[in-house]
Amino acid sequence: MSTPEIACWEIFELSLPGLAFGNPFADVHLSARFQKGGRVLEPEGFYDGAEGRKGIYRLRFMPDELGEWRYVTRSNLPELDGIQGTFYCVPPHPGVHGPVKVASTYHFAYADGKRFFPLGTTCYAWANQPVELQEQTIQSLATAPFNKLRMCIFPKDYLYNKNEPLDYAFPILEKETRVKGQTSTDEYSFDFTRFNPAFFRRIEQHIGQLAELRIEADVILFHPYDRWGFSNMDAQTDERYLRYLIARLAAYRNVWWSLANEYDIMKSKNLADWDRLFRIVQTYDPYQHLRSVHNWQRSDTHDTRTFYDHGKPWVTHCSIQHSYVDLVSNWRELYHKPVIVDECCYEGNLPNAWGNLIPQEMVRRFWEATLRGGYCTHGETYLDSQDVIWWAKGGLLKGQSPPRIAFLRHILEEIPAGWLDPLTGITNTHLSSAGQPGRYYLTYFGFRQPGEVQVSLPVEGTFRAEIIDTWEMTISPLPGTFERTTTIALPGKPYLALRIQKT
Amino acid sequence: MSTPEIACWEIFELSLPGLAFGNPFADVHLSARFQKGGRVLEPEGFYDGAEGRKGIYRLRFMPDELGEWRYVTRSNLPELDGIQGTFYCVPPHPGVHGPVKVASTYHFAYADGKRFFPLGTTCYAWANQPVELQEQTIQSLATAPFNKLRMCIFPKDYLYNKNEPLDYAFPILEKETRVKGQTSTDEYSFDFTRFNPAFFRRIEQHIGQLAELRIEADVILFHPYDRWGFSNMDAQTDERYLRYLIARLAAYRNVWWSLANEYDIMKSKNLADWDRLFRIVQTYDPYQHLRSVHNWQRSDTHDTRTFYDHGKPWVTHCSIQHSYVDLVSNWRELYHKPVIVDECCYEGNLPNAWGNLIPQEMVRRFWEATLRGGYCTHGETYLDSQDVIWWAKGGLLKGQSPPRIAFLRHILEEIPAGWLDPLTGITNTHLSSAGQPGRYYLTYFGFRQPGEVQVSLPVEGTFRAEIIDTWEMTISPLPGTFERTTTIALPGKPYLALRIQKT
Repeated sequence: MSTPEIACWEIFELSLPGLAFGNPFADVHLSARFQKGGRVLEPEGFYDGAEGRKGIYRLRFMPDELGEWRYVTRSNLPELDGIQGTFYCVPPHPGVHGPVKVASTYHFAYADGKRFFPLGTTCYAWANQPVELQEQTIQSLATAPFNKLRMCIFPKDYLYNKNEPLDYAFPILEKETRVKGQTSTDEYSFDFTRFNPAFFRRIEQHIGQLAELRIEADVILFHPYDRWGFSNMDAQTDERYLRYLIARLAAYRNVWWSLANEYDIMKSKNLADWDRLFRIVQTYDPYQHLRSVHNWQRSDTHDTRTFYDHGKPWVTHCSIQHSYVDLVSNWRELYHKPVIVDECCYEGNLPNAWGNLIPQEMVRRFWEATLRGGYCTHGETYLDSQDVIWWAKGGLLKGQSPPRIAFLRHILEEIPAGWLDPLTGITNTHLSSAGQPGRYYLTYFGFRQPGEVQVSLPVEGTFRAEIIDTWEMTISPLPGTFERTTTIALPGKPYLALRIQKT
Repeated sequence: MSTPEIACWEIFELSLPGLAFGNPFADVHLSARFQKGGRVLEPEGFYDGAEGRKGIYRLRFMPDELGEWRYVTRSNLPELDGIQGTFYCVPPHPGVHGPVKVASTYHFAYADGKRFFPLGTTCYAWANQPVELQEQTIQSLATAPFNKLRMCIFPKDYLYNKNEPLDYAFPILEKETRVKGQTSTDEYSFDFTRFNPAFFRRIEQHIGQLAELRIEADVILFHPYDRWGFSNMDAQTDERYLRYLIARLAAYRNVWWSLANEYDIMKSKNLADWDRLFRIVQTYDPYQHLRSVHNWQRSDTHDTRTFYDHGKPWVTHCSIQHSYVDLVSNWRELYHKPVIVDECCYEGNLPNAWGNLIPQEMVRRFWEATLRGGYCTHGETYLDSQDVIWWAKGGLLKGQSPPRIAFLRHILEEIPAGWLDPLTGITNTHLSSAGQPGRYYLTYFGFRQPGEVQVSLPVEGTFRAEIIDTWEMTISPLPGTFERTTTIALPGKPYLALRIQKT
């Protein structure tokens, strides 16, 4: 038998039949040491349910370095212990660049160095919708501009989200074990000591589909919108759930961990709990996928002190809910980490203030956050007779911001090198300017309409300039070239940007 | 000779010829005790220059209570000391309501109780422009919606403001007293121990003209944009200047005192200086006109801690520079005083970020501040070939926000009684709602486009509803009446408001 080959950043999976001993989710421990040279990574395995009379245990590993990897398993179940093997990690498939990591302090890149500009959206509850709707969501995402998707593991109980999920992460207790005379809340009675492998297989399928579409899965581990009890499990169950989820998902290169959506409305957990949960993820994820947590409080006020402290070492980037994206400048300064405004309200027409931005304002927030050296996340909330709203359930996109976000993505990907960091002194305004000194400058005017701006360019070289209409999605080159200090006339209309590049 | 009669809140002036002793601005002290019943007010007089061989001293008093007032002067110049008299304060002229005071914690009213909704603008340097331009400014104000004008005493040296003023508050030193070989800065050499009465007479004329137009004069006592030395006079000169100004202006009912524009860029004064200057104004103004101070720092960030502490007892209201008017809610909570966002950027097309808002955004900021229980101030900065820009010099208004601010003023003045204070629970949104429980509700949608809102009205009574298009300036009644909980469909467009009133 020849040594197997696994492409870099794909999944090597050991599938091990074994005795379904006791409660195999809890009683059987399985892990493996994967070694290449001096490096050792040690993922945990998981029980994936029974096939016939045998249980199936699996252990997944994502190689991130070319060459020969050796492994050996460890288990308290003798038949799973000491299994050894070797495989070769070969070059990645075309278009695969590895997991996304922090780059250049405030930005992101894939493991192979290719820049990643997060332009996310939300379909919080899509993974728990009917299968046809899941398929429609994937089809929509295939042609949408988004490269990151915020999605919850657990189902969502909230306005417009009252439907029952397909199934649950935990097995339902047998009816006869329930207490009689129970209230409707008690109808959801789970065996929290076991998992429902089918539920997780569906999540894995989704994450794999997203990987195919080159979309990062920003997986939300906990959230408060819950009628099933998943938001207030005990600490032991939380840890078992996280380790099981990590064992199953961490080998997917496109996973990010979002500890929670709106962590601070989850009254059953305090800050020490969140610290502990972060550290569980940090400990058991061999690949150190990106980690953050998303706030609710103070989303519309000036006081950011009640955020979870993104300065803590296990937080890789800021995942912020706030309407005033100008504050990206402050958060960069405060945390020295990448800033993603993962919720800035949604484009739509719901009554609720968080869900009725005009598309112009959604696009403006993307540009403003971007020009301040941060990133923004989309969501869409148009009223629907069936309550199928993209923001939570996925389905079809109806809004006018996605094509403009595609246009922004195109502009970002055209930056010759590096990322957008704030710059001052390029124009005689105090407006958001960003770029790279000496070669690339972008200034955004938003709801401002300067009739002219004075541009101060470096003494070396000549530059070309273009006026970008971020709403009309046009790029109009200005005639001639520009040097040193020049005044540029601008059309008196909103949502323009000025791009200046070295010739 | 019959007892003179003075209408309430007009100016009673004693004009007293006397010896121009020494430096009569500094060496002669004049004041008077005005008494009615147990009340005593004690304004200071001032030297107004010589007429022929005699100096003219004046003392002004604004009676605020009907009936007989008696007075007696005090002076260190014997001929000005001990002058006694009586006058009758008779009912005010039509349309005169007295000085504006704080009312209902967060709002304003004239002395007679009539509500005052400040809708201000800025012509910072208008008082120091050529006379024809001053006249044009007054003509513009006569038909504009503004009822408060922010204006500096001292001339302005800044972008687009390089012209020399007509004259100065202090006499220019004789040429032969100047040092030879002086730099251009030294060309402005003043005798800071004396005043130029003609300068102050012009200011008084302006304030009188504004009073005729029912416009409050928000008089800015100091500001940093200075090439003449008025921003860094010594403490003694500052005090003499303030007392002289107060002696001349305080009897004008429409005066407000703004200690500074952008106090925190004036490096020659520290916080203790500002406390002292506030207390000088508090001590010598017998009428306790409104007092505040306007900040520069943190105008675009979340940290408001560097504001002058508007909680200090001598600050009557908050005068704030900030772009994010949503924070009005916070400042109300923090200071428990009226909040005026006296600078939220200006409508215009300058290159500078503070001066190029599209008119829609200026109007939106007015509405947003208003619905949060605060107030907003306009300014206009369109490029002009002669650098005549309304924001500083006055002249002609060119923008599109003033008619919309007139429309807002009309809506405010139509409120049956009281003011707009924030309300929650009227609609199922988190949007800005304000009004008066049980009878009047206003909700503003800004750059939001809810397709419908659910309105929860009190059980008593029926209500009528109107959709206000704040940009198109239309008010469209909805058919029928409304009771209790009702869903109201809204057109999907920005800048709408919903007004609901008890029938």
